[in-house]
Amino acid sequence: MRRFVIKGNICYSKSINELCITENGYVVCEDGICAGVYKELPECYGIFPFYDYTNHIIIPGFTDLHVHAPQYPFRGLGMDLELIGWLNTHTFAEEAKYSDIEYARKSYDIFVEDLVNSATTRACIFGTIHTQATTLLMEKLESSGIKAYVGKVNMDRNSPLYLQEKSAGQAFEDTEKWITRSLNYENVKPILTPRFIPTCSDGLMEKLSILQKKYHLPVQSHLSENTGEIKWVKELCPDTSFYGEAYSKYGMFGNEYPAIMAHCVHSGGDETSLMKKQNVFIAHCPESNTNLSSGIAPVRAYLELGIKTGLGSDIAAGSSLSIFKAMAMAIQCSKLRWRLQDQSLAPLGISEAFYMATKGGGEFFGKAGSFEEGYEFDAVIIDDSTIKHPQKLNARERLERLVYLAEDKNIVAKFVNGKKLFEKTAHS
Amino acid sequence: MRRFVIKGNICYSKSINELCITENGYVVCEDGICAGVYKELPECYGIFPFYDYTNHIIIPGFTDLHVHAPQYPFRGLGMDLELIGWLNTHTFAEEAKYSDIEYARKSYDIFVEDLVNSATTRACIFGTIHTQATTLLMEKLESSGIKAYVGKVNMDRNSPLYLQEKSAGQAFEDTEKWITRSLNYENVKPILTPRFIPTCSDGLMEKLSILQKKYHLPVQSHLSENTGEIKWVKELCPDTSFYGEAYSKYGMFGNEYPAIMAHCVHSGGDETSLMKKQNVFIAHCPESNTNLSSGIAPVRAYLELGIKTGLGSDIAAGSSLSIFKAMAMAIQCSKLRWRLQDQSLAPLGISEAFYMATKGGGEFFGKAGSFEEGYEFDAVIIDDSTIKHPQKLNARERLERLVYLAEDKNIVAKFVNGKKLFEKTAHS
Repeated sequence: MRRFVIKGNICYSKSINELCITENGYVVCEDGICAGVYKELPECYGIFPFYDYTNHIIIPGFTDLHVHAPQYPFRGLGMDLELIGWLNTHTFAEEAKYSDIEYARKSYDIFVEDLVNSATTRACIFGTIHTQATTLLMEKLESSGIKAYVGKVNMDRNSPLYLQEKSAGQAFEDTEKWITRSLNYENVKPILTPRFIPTCSDGLMEKLSILQKKYHLPVQSHLSENTGEIKWVKELCPDTSFYGEAYSKYGMFGNEYPAIMAHCVHSGGDETSLMKKQNVFIAHCPESNTNLSSGIAPVRAYLELGIKTGLGSDIAAGSSLSIFKAMAMAIQCSKLRWRLQDQSLAPLGISEAFYMATKGGGEFFGKAGSFEEGYEFDAVIIDDSTIKHPQKLNARERLERLVYLAEDKNIVAKFVNGKKLFEKTAHS
Repeated sequence: MRRFVIKGNICYSKSINELCITENGYVVCEDGICAGVYKELPECYGIFPFYDYTNHIIIPGFTDLHVHAPQYPFRGLGMDLELIGWLNTHTFAEEAKYSDIEYARKSYDIFVEDLVNSATTRACIFGTIHTQATTLLMEKLESSGIKAYVGKVNMDRNSPLYLQEKSAGQAFEDTEKWITRSLNYENVKPILTPRFIPTCSDGLMEKLSILQKKYHLPVQSHLSENTGEIKWVKELCPDTSFYGEAYSKYGMFGNEYPAIMAHCVHSGGDETSLMKKQNVFIAHCPESNTNLSSGIAPVRAYLELGIKTGLGSDIAAGSSLSIFKAMAMAIQCSKLRWRLQDQSLAPLGISEAFYMATKGGGEFFGKAGSFEEGYEFDAVIIDDSTIKHPQKLNARERLERLVYLAEDKNIVAKFVNGKKLFEKTAHS
């Protein structure tokens, strides 16, 4: 039936500046859809099944707008290089292992288990070039109940032969086979995933563009992460005036088909305008941009322009799947950017960070990431009693503290689209 | 007896560039002192009691070189201001509560319990101006087995009347009483703690200088954290040419009596030279400096100059007691400083961060923070099996991962100066 009432301290965003909190409130799920938040429960819902989480913090699930599942094994490792060196030294070697389906099974079991136990309910995920391993990942996610877009990665140049598609034609064939196999899941959907311009030939981009139109697929990729990368793209695409154009000229930069571009640390005015105009989603990945010494994206500017912006863990350039951690890093990096680079953009606060983590990124999935009426009902139940304190705290303060201090053990139950994924008994 | 052998993956620093790792090795404790690390156990130690932590990572305990115990209740809260506004809005109001000994008891119980469960074995701790509450904190730490320097805070100007000593004379009297009561603990020692120059009158500094000489006490304070603060000190002390001189002229800047100065984000050349010359310890607090938008200290420069440098959690401007987190933030902030501010200082790596967390800060306690022969035997036993992976990892990689991903649940046993503080049974 997927109809029930949850009681607790309900926290959700309406907009960048509106963080709504109802202490000891009720949030109602009807057929998997949110039927509103109430201070007093309307009589008509009195007959619904009832979950009493009175002392807990209740949030809509987080969306991880950019994460590489196959890189999960080396999270927290190899943090000594910038982007291109890091890809060549650590990343490609690890991703190549997914030609071995048994390795993929072991690794993706761990990834999906940890994702389920996190506060994330929805994610946009990169696989590898391997169709079999990517299908396996999708099957595991499908049964977990997490909602996800998953992409088989495309790349046919500037990468080691052991991790490269043989030709644009072969890539087209393999990718179409993978797409047609991926269309009938309930929770998981395919998303086109050209790795990034340096590893995708014009021929490949043309082929992907054909598949995009044929199957009406969204797309995810990387954009303007590192200054060396941007220079390289300029050399590779002399006919474009900025990096984003190299996607846009193949129709893979928003507009008709939704697009997520990760990073946008160094996007200039034209690129930013085009993202705004074509409704491109930005996946802000502050820990990744820090670990790879890429820089700090001007997130407040993006938010104030009304560009759709969410948060990404960017495993394994980011070390942690925790979107709480991404929120903390977004705030922290915005402060350092303000101090060291540009005092015209005020630092972010809890309100903006929580918005990006929930409704901002959730919008890629339609109406997701909020407890406003009509939104798909995702909820994460948080027991913060392990974070002890001698004084009284209100729900807003408890939420703020969680941004910095939440651990997976604090996540005690999770619902996605009205379906309960798990519920832990006390300190299980 | 305090003599035993531990088997496991032994990790410790000899210097900034020498991170030593012995996989499946042995480390020997004899009378509370480290008797060396061995690949094969020498026969003479065969009769010692034996702890088998074969699969675990073994590190010397961390030193938290700068932490405010009374601020622990609001860790992760009130992160929206710079230093002076933050002190006036959040900090002083919380610290004032410690005139109530019952509130202090509740709060310090939590602080000490969490400190014991962390990977920290030694700490330099600020209390409040209240002698009774500070003594209570010292008693709790003494029975916990943690080694600590604890300071009753001194402040007699530029702070609210409810959190200010009445006069320099009264401060002298109260502080001397507190010192004489604090001299006979085994694990805990008093340290002079003028809060920082803006809240300490010349008269107070003179009195503290008398106490320092009389009781041979070390000192801890704050230095060059925030640009507004530095400007203020210039106005308050027109006879000094840099901030550090305002301590130095009272003999409270190293040399005869050891001194810890927290932050040093904006120290100029003269200040840095004087710290080097007088063996001042720097407590680098990267999370705090980020959360209060203070900036990023040039830590590599300090390390290369040979200035004694350790890490501080700086609760509650830092949100977490975890020195693993301080290590990660030290590395991450050094990368952003390199990218945004000054490419002449290369980012820090695991080796430098681990050195600061262990031997660097440990030196304030004498021979502490290493498994080299003759060091006081502190050890933290880490079970990282919750951080799952499909591939093989060596001990160095596992240690690197822990910097980013360790949680308190991974700390399964702790020894300080040869005494076992706790040992958790599997997943307790």
